[in-house]
Amino acid sequence: MKYIATCFFLFCLAISASAQTSAAQEDSLNLRKLYDMSLLNGQSYEWLDHLSNKIGGRLSGSVNAERAVQYTKDELEKLGLDKVWLQPVMVPKWTRGVKEYAYVQAAGGPTNVVNIVALGGSVATPDTGLRANVIEVQGLEDLQLYGKGQIEGKIVFFNRPMPPDVIQTFSAYGGCVDQRYSGAKEAAKYGAVGVIVRSLTHKIDHYPHTGSMSYGDMPDSKRIPAAAISTQDAEYLSSMLKLNTDLDFYFKMSPRNYPDVESHNVIGEITGSEKPEEIIVVGGHLDSWDLGDGAHDDGAGVVQSMEVLRLFKETGIRPKRTIRVVLFMNEENGLRGGNKYADVAKQKKENHIFALESDAGGFTPRGFSFNARPSQFEKIQNWEPLFKPYLIHYFELGGSGADISPLENGNTVLAGLRPDSQRYFDYHHAATDTFDAVNKRELELGAATMASLVYLVDKYGFDRIQKSPEILK
Amino acid sequence: MKYIATCFFLFCLAISASAQTSAAQEDSLNLRKLYDMSLLNGQSYEWLDHLSNKIGGRLSGSVNAERAVQYTKDELEKLGLDKVWLQPVMVPKWTRGVKEYAYVQAAGGPTNVVNIVALGGSVATPDTGLRANVIEVQGLEDLQLYGKGQIEGKIVFFNRPMPPDVIQTFSAYGGCVDQRYSGAKEAAKYGAVGVIVRSLTHKIDHYPHTGSMSYGDMPDSKRIPAAAISTQDAEYLSSMLKLNTDLDFYFKMSPRNYPDVESHNVIGEITGSEKPEEIIVVGGHLDSWDLGDGAHDDGAGVVQSMEVLRLFKETGIRPKRTIRVVLFMNEENGLRGGNKYADVAKQKKENHIFALESDAGGFTPRGFSFNARPSQFEKIQNWEPLFKPYLIHYFELGGSGADISPLENGNTVLAGLRPDSQRYFDYHHAATDTFDAVNKRELELGAATMASLVYLVDKYGFDRIQKSPEILK
Repeated sequence: MKYIATCFFLFCLAISASAQTSAAQEDSLNLRKLYDMSLLNGQSYEWLDHLSNKIGGRLSGSVNAERAVQYTKDELEKLGLDKVWLQPVMVPKWTRGVKEYAYVQAAGGPTNVVNIVALGGSVATPDTGLRANVIEVQGLEDLQLYGKGQIEGKIVFFNRPMPPDVIQTFSAYGGCVDQRYSGAKEAAKYGAVGVIVRSLTHKIDHYPHTGSMSYGDMPDSKRIPAAAISTQDAEYLSSMLKLNTDLDFYFKMSPRNYPDVESHNVIGEITGSEKPEEIIVVGGHLDSWDLGDGAHDDGAGVVQSMEVLRLFKETGIRPKRTIRVVLFMNEENGLRGGNKYADVAKQKKENHIFALESDAGGFTPRGFSFNARPSQFEKIQNWEPLFKPYLIHYFELGGSGADISPLENGNTVLAGLRPDSQRYFDYHHAATDTFDAVNKRELELGAATMASLVYLVDKYGFDRIQKSPEILK
Repeated sequence: MKYIATCFFLFCLAISASAQTSAAQEDSLNLRKLYDMSLLNGQSYEWLDHLSNKIGGRLSGSVNAERAVQYTKDELEKLGLDKVWLQPVMVPKWTRGVKEYAYVQAAGGPTNVVNIVALGGSVATPDTGLRANVIEVQGLEDLQLYGKGQIEGKIVFFNRPMPPDVIQTFSAYGGCVDQRYSGAKEAAKYGAVGVIVRSLTHKIDHYPHTGSMSYGDMPDSKRIPAAAISTQDAEYLSSMLKLNTDLDFYFKMSPRNYPDVESHNVIGEITGSEKPEEIIVVGGHLDSWDLGDGAHDDGAGVVQSMEVLRLFKETGIRPKRTIRVVLFMNEENGLRGGNKYADVAKQKKENHIFALESDAGGFTPRGFSFNARPSQFEKIQNWEPLFKPYLIHYFELGGSGADISPLENGNTVLAGLRPDSQRYFDYHHAATDTFDAVNKRELELGAATMASLVYLVDKYGFDRIQKSPEILK
């Protein structure tokens, strides 16, 4: 009896090992199918061409944003998904106005024109512009150091550069973005009349980089205008200030905040064949800044997410769970789309097991970062060998994507595609973020990499964890 | 006694573990120093600017190649190395002549101009150009299929594209380059009068990509002219041929082969403080094709290799072994510099323990490939964790670099820097290979990654293996 039991045990073990091998082989073959389809017959690049060159910058509340909603909805409908719909969401509407103008001038000297752009959300200067003495600081903490005595009545020039020695460029960005986001709000407390912020990029060039800023709950009457200056001009201004601290800065810009307007998240899904109630989201954000085409930020993420569903359809891989593409509106200056999507999901008591965002540019994919519990992350790490042939090696905890972050609930695994990011901030929020800066292969590799992870999550799922609220990030 | 012995053993173990920890800490700190110096105070980008924009394309035997020899020698001398010298080498001299001209024409139809460039080493067409019926093939093997009957008197158009589904672009290139290298030699055997080869790039654009070709030992009288056509025009020509197989191709070009001329490898070294007779080489090739600036191929490798020695000098890390930078002449159309360097090393009975080449573009570094014995490769793999903070993950067997390959002797470990290569063939051997296509950070990360590996090899060395001739590649 013992002998028979042992035999039976060994037999089961053999069956199980062989089943595992054949599952791994199937996974390997299906990943290859997804990559081949993306690289040989991909549609992401063509979609991005349209979004970038036929539509262009897609700031929330703009006509272009609405054109992008309509275009992507139409394209998703062509894919033969099970459902495609628009999810209404109220978004802020801010417009840049006429092109900004600025110069630096020493007493009695010539005017030296510099390149600036209004930060998103900034108020306008007076119609005749704003001229004041300029004072350079290296960050928010310097405001207290100089105090009202040295700041009042001046334009504050925040000039802390992104540190080049930080390997992960998003970390370098994260360490500097407070100047842009809160610079005006904080400087106004010390009586500053305006704010100029060094563009957040490693590159020294003439392109200013915009981005969101906030006045918090500051009353309208106290709000001061804020602009980004190109790194080349920031270097110039700083060197001028070293020679002569009595320097005037003049700038003129006419941005305007309007009441909120209605826009939409664009959503499409393939309904799961076995567990339709378990939802996997893949997405990017449809809005962009207005200076370039928003090709990397985040046209790439949009078309890659659409491509994930198309790859499933075209390869004939039928998902067990529901796979939903969500093109979020208003990531750049409000996150209204991300919040709305999560609110509705909560109201409907939908069960999102996984959400993946691509919002770090259309560059060569290196892997993913995750917000997950230990047991969930362990499962993911088991899949790493499947990605090796595609040079995908980065599987780390730490962050996902802004739009999907409101889905965080202690159970849903969140992930962000991590492309090579060394060049990302050359383009980010600047006029240089255009279609020609995106490489077709790199974009397609990213889409296939996302589809591969979605395939594995769909196939193997995640165990629902009831207790232990701690999540690894 | 046993107790004392055990205590002593445990004590030794603790000492050894603590020594290992402190060595690992020192390594980690020194790698950080090398990266910081490259990213914060690097010189590679400035050197590349000069090589690309002040000198430009540096084809072997050209005035520019000699200017590059002089410039890099001067710059190495400024670094305070222990020795800098020129190593004479005879190199081929081939010139492109006046700009090539080509068109396609159906009987009685208009002439449709297409973009071509002569392949390096090709003979000229007659002064009045060459016009003949064109036949499309997909590779060398098709020549036999069509035979003399269909090929004689015609221009053969090799149109096999680089396969987009091959993830490693160098493999895709390797699978197609035979058309370019041997197309003319093989087609001539079937009576072809000329050869047009689809450019070796994934990108569909108007830039033809040149590269070396060979007639082997074919007598001069039998040699037929060979050119590369842009991918856009290759697609056009192919689609025209589908409509009408009776199509003429006309091309006119005036390249010329001259007798060999003298040029030089540029060499500099920091002599080792403890084992000066053990030599570590780091290098790239100084020559380039003539169409662009040769910024990626291989200006990047040249300045990164120079930077490796500068990083050692500037960080004050004193190598135990001799570290030598070698800027090889004539990789593109002869490999004379690489062969000469290895010949002289052999004559002098120099002991090269390691050679590292950067010749795959100045893109974000991903890691290295190696030719090494199992025990050597195992040692290298132990260093992988040190590279993780820099996102360097690729440590694989399989190839090194063309210029250092003649050093292969069963003992010397050979390595190649492996940058991200997805965009490489957009620029390779084309007019698009210019300075602005190289990103400063990516270039600097590559230099620091190379310096880090050189640092570890210098510190730990490799055991010399006397027997077992099998090398892993």
